[in-house]
Amino acid sequence: TDAYDTSKMDLKPIAAKLTQERHKGAFASGDSLNLTALLKPVDPAPVKTVQLDTTHKIIEIAPGVKFSGWTFGDQVPGPAIRARVGERIRFSMTNRSDEAAPGISLTAAPMMHSMDFHAAMVSPQDKYRSVAPGQTIEFEFTLNYPGVFMYHCGTPMILEHIASGMYGAVIVEPRGGYPTKVDREYLVVQSEFYAKPDPEGRKVDGGPLYVLDNERLRAAQPTHTVFNGSHNGMVRNPLPAKAGERVRLFVLNVGPSKTSSFHVVGTIFDRVWLEGNPDNQMRGMQTVLLGSSNSAIMEMVIPENGSYIMVDHHFANASQGAIGLISTESK
Amino acid sequence: TDAYDTSKMDLKPIAAKLTQERHKGAFASGDSLNLTALLKPVDPAPVKTVQLDTTHKIIEIAPGVKFSGWTFGDQVPGPAIRARVGERIRFSMTNRSDEAAPGISLTAAPMMHSMDFHAAMVSPQDKYRSVAPGQTIEFEFTLNYPGVFMYHCGTPMILEHIASGMYGAVIVEPRGGYPTKVDREYLVVQSEFYAKPDPEGRKVDGGPLYVLDNERLRAAQPTHTVFNGSHNGMVRNPLPAKAGERVRLFVLNVGPSKTSSFHVVGTIFDRVWLEGNPDNQMRGMQTVLLGSSNSAIMEMVIPENGSYIMVDHHFANASQGAIGLISTESK
Amino acid sequence: TDAYDTSKMDLKPIAAKLTQERHKGAFASGDSLNLTALLKPVDPAPVKTVQLDTTHKIIEIAPGVKFSGWTFGDQVPGPAIRARVGERIRFSMTNRSDEAAPGISLTAAPMMHSMDFHAAMVSPQDKYRSVAPGQTIEFEFTLNYPGVFMYHCGTPMILEHIASGMYGAVIVEPRGGYPTKVDREYLVVQSEFYAKPDPEGRKVDGGPLYVLDNERLRAAQPTHTVFNGSHNGMVRNPLPAKAGERVRLFVLNVGPSKTSSFHVVGTIFDRVWLEGNPDNQMRGMQTVLLGSSNSAIMEMVIPENGSYIMVDHHFANASQGAIGLISTESK
Ligand SMILES: [Cu+2]
Ligand SMILES: [Cu+2]
Ligand SMILES: [Cu+2]
Ligand SMILES: [Cu+2]
Ligand SMILES: [Cu+2]
Ligand SMILES: [Cu+2]
Ligand code: NA
Ligand code: NA
Ligand code: NA
Ligand code: NA
Ligand code: NA
Ligand code: NA
Ligand SMILES: [Zn+2]
Ligand SMILES: [Zn+2]
Ligand SMILES: [Zn+2]
Ligand SMILES: [Zn+2]
Ligand SMILES: [Zn+2]
Ligand SMILES: [Zn+2]
Ligand SMILES: [Zn+2]
Ligand SMILES: [Zn+2]
Ligand SMILES: [Zn+2]
Repeated sequence: TDAYDTSKMDLKPIAAKLTQERHKGAFASGDSLNLTALLKPVDPAPVKTVQLDTTHKIIEIAPGVKFSGWTFGDQVPGPAIRARVGERIRFSMTNRSDEAAPGISLTAAPMMHSMDFHAAMVSPQDKYRSVAPGQTIEFEFTLNYPGVFMYHCGTPMILEHIASGMYGAVIVEPRGGYPTKVDREYLVVQSEFYAKPDPEGRKVDGGPLYVLDNERLRAAQPTHTVFNGSHNGMVRNPLPAKAGERVRLFVLNVGPSKTSSFHVVGTIFDRVWLEGNPDNQMRGMQTVLLGSSNSAIMEMVIPENGSYIMVDHHFANASQGAIGLISTESK
Repeated sequence: TDAYDTSKMDLKPIAAKLTQERHKGAFASGDSLNLTALLKPVDPAPVKTVQLDTTHKIIEIAPGVKFSGWTFGDQVPGPAIRARVGERIRFSMTNRSDEAAPGISLTAAPMMHSMDFHAAMVSPQDKYRSVAPGQTIEFEFTLNYPGVFMYHCGTPMILEHIASGMYGAVIVEPRGGYPTKVDREYLVVQSEFYAKPDPEGRKVDGGPLYVLDNERLRAAQPTHTVFNGSHNGMVRNPLPAKAGERVRLFVLNVGPSKTSSFHVVGTIFDRVWLEGNPDNQMRGMQTVLLGSSNSAIMEMVIPENGSYIMVDHHFANASQGAIGLISTESK
Repeated sequence: TDAYDTSKMDLKPIAAKLTQERHKGAFASGDSLNLTALLKPVDPAPVKTVQLDTTHKIIEIAPGVKFSGWTFGDQVPGPAIRARVGERIRFSMTNRSDEAAPGISLTAAPMMHSMDFHAAMVSPQDKYRSVAPGQTIEFEFTLNYPGVFMYHCGTPMILEHIASGMYGAVIVEPRGGYPTKVDREYLVVQSEFYAKPDPEGRKVDGGPLYVLDNERLRAAQPTHTVFNGSHNGMVRNPLPAKAGERVRLFVLNVGPSKTSSFHVVGTIFDRVWLEGNPDNQMRGMQTVLLGSSNSAIMEMVIPENGSYIMVDHHFANASQGAIGLISTESK
């Protein structure tokens, strides 16, 4: 018997619902959401209600580099959803790109946005359609495969929407959870930014505003390649672990256009589950190559006290900010 | 017992034969050939006689972009050969780069060409040697491994010959066929073009003639990245499928220089056979990373009515034309 | 029982030792070292004593292209270490970047260097720290996983240290050796160079001195992509093999920034062990995609007399020198 018997999958297509009703208050909600690298255990509810609204927001992609971003849930990367195979996601999203955040003037005009979940098996025409500012889309789907899946805005030019920050991860565990035990679980999302000082000279907090450099974007020549949205962010704030502990990293390479050669200095990946599925297991890897929207779960032991360096071993990318630490001196 | 016991393989090297005799008429022939994305079942003959002649031809790589191409079988990509492990390919090729197609003046001088089959185990010096315009080369080989293999011209500068259109696929099924059943089978060949308007200002059909941009080619900065030879070609002409059907995609990334992050929006790859060999199986993948001359077979279910978007999720590539549709509204 | 039970691994952290004592004489020593593509069988000593000193040296990366390199063991790539799982490496390195080689004036000022072994599980802060010219660092570690692992200098800017030549391979066999038998074993290390004529106009042997082109380096636009340190080096000096023989290639892609689509013209990889670990086996591959610091062991049969062409099938890379031969006419 096949664990993925597609004839027995719960596909149950229900049409997406488009309304003129607007979410108020928080830009993201749901017990299954994880806002940072530190992952909570999976929430027990068999149906996960998830709200992720789109916003336009100034984000700091490197110290002093304030970039005109577009978001899911008002952060980049967007919140990670964690669930299990067989569970259902009940999703809603208001396009709130027309709301100015407090104290910040809009830098990008309100525009259409949408949601494409790689974890779903649904018609893109229906569920992933673009919605106008002020509109809300709702749809649901069942999780059929374990994995670490990308979500992102699918509105043309998709390349620009991803490069502006509209992405996040859905972690889907096997029905019975993972076959191994670990001490720590962290999420690392790699992505590229293509930033230039605003040609119109707009400022933010007295410094230059950075906007999307479309020429670099089309040529796949990023200015920043980062983990979890911030140039060397986890160098400044290392992920904690203790000597002898087993750490499980969930790594998603968003791109939008480059590969990642993900490596941790000082240890070896004991197990690697390509695309985050334990059925796709490799052992003893130094480095895992991930295309745009590929992912992997990697488990490793922290051999002794010290700081272990996560890096895209394409070192031109690392030099752009794709560096982070797992450290026994961090709390 | 090893399914690939190399000591029992039929390698039987027979020297290639070079003649001054010229094929006339059709540029391609053979019951095992497939000219489009739609794949026929494998032909039952244990020896496949295949003729693929080389031509120089204006090809339309995007609407209005007429490019000075070099071909196998007078089309880009060249016809796909389909066969099974243990069968034999009896191949012949006339270099017809000196024949002007009707109504078209030659844009590239006649030149040497050759054939390199990744599916073969033979001496390149002998079988893959370059032949002059008007000459015919013949050789044969047994198929020892299942897979989706690239073929291409191997005449220096190889980079230019591939970038000009000289490539195609050989599909080799396992001896007993594939272990799963599907409703549809399609071939998708991804490749890059490096085109610039002819510096000499030559025209075709009243519009500009495009020629190879050698500077972009050497820098690996394509102008077009396409499926099956045409920018967004399968957006204009989607591949048909019905809701609930299982589709098997045979995907070959030709390059010549880039990777593909192949993805289908709206579904998940149930099985992925890396290099097209069921022994190399992955499950539940969102995206498959393919280097230049890598391939995979991907099977997936079409969950409901709609249009499912094939894309290189390196989105700078997708924006250059690497987009296609599988649609329940297509026939 | 898990072959890689991390709770039973010999991690035994012993602090690295830093001394002001300097190695004299040979820049590399150890019975486990392999200086060329031709690999010796593994040395039987359970503890491998390895000395690899760093030097600054003019290296010829292509005929007539004399480049200001930095090395391990006075060669690029550095010597390959060969050992088995469970064995221990006792390593020492003197930073001898302040010693001028005979007849050659220094082209790069002495500087800090360090050693990062991907084969090790140790604290980078301790073992991989940077040492000043004249200092010696010593540390040891046990080999816990089979594989083909990269080593490299880890001193910032790491990108520049790798691009200047500071890398090599550690081959770790399974405890009982490999599960297959072969006739030949060769090591192929792919790497990129980013070279420009010295802006200060310095000469070497009457010709131009080439130095690191930092602009190309940061943009990941190499000038040379080579196997074993030399543009088309193994075209001039092919690796020998006989018809019918089984050849095992150990391939490491150093980068520092590009992927390799490794292929051999005229045969098919019977077995591919990703990262050099037989547990990660693929069959019947035409091409193996390797990220920066990825590796693979590939076994293949030489079907008949001839010259078989190793190539990075990203052909823009091959055109930069990533070509070599395995030939039945070579000795
Ligand atoms: Cu959007
Ligand atoms: Cu490294
Ligand atoms: Cu040709
Ligand atoms: Cu997507
Ligand atoms: Cu160094
Ligand atoms: Cu080839
Ligand atoms: Na490591
Ligand atoms: Na070439
Ligand atoms: Na999908
Ligand atoms: Na686009
Ligand atoms: Na750096
Ligand atoms: Na081949
Ligand atoms: Zn930065
Ligand atoms: Zn969007
Ligand atoms: Zn390392
Ligand atoms: Zn186009
Ligand atoms: Zn050719
Ligand atoms: Zn998708
Ligand atoms: Zn060169
Ligand atoms: Zn260094
Ligand atoms: Zn080939």
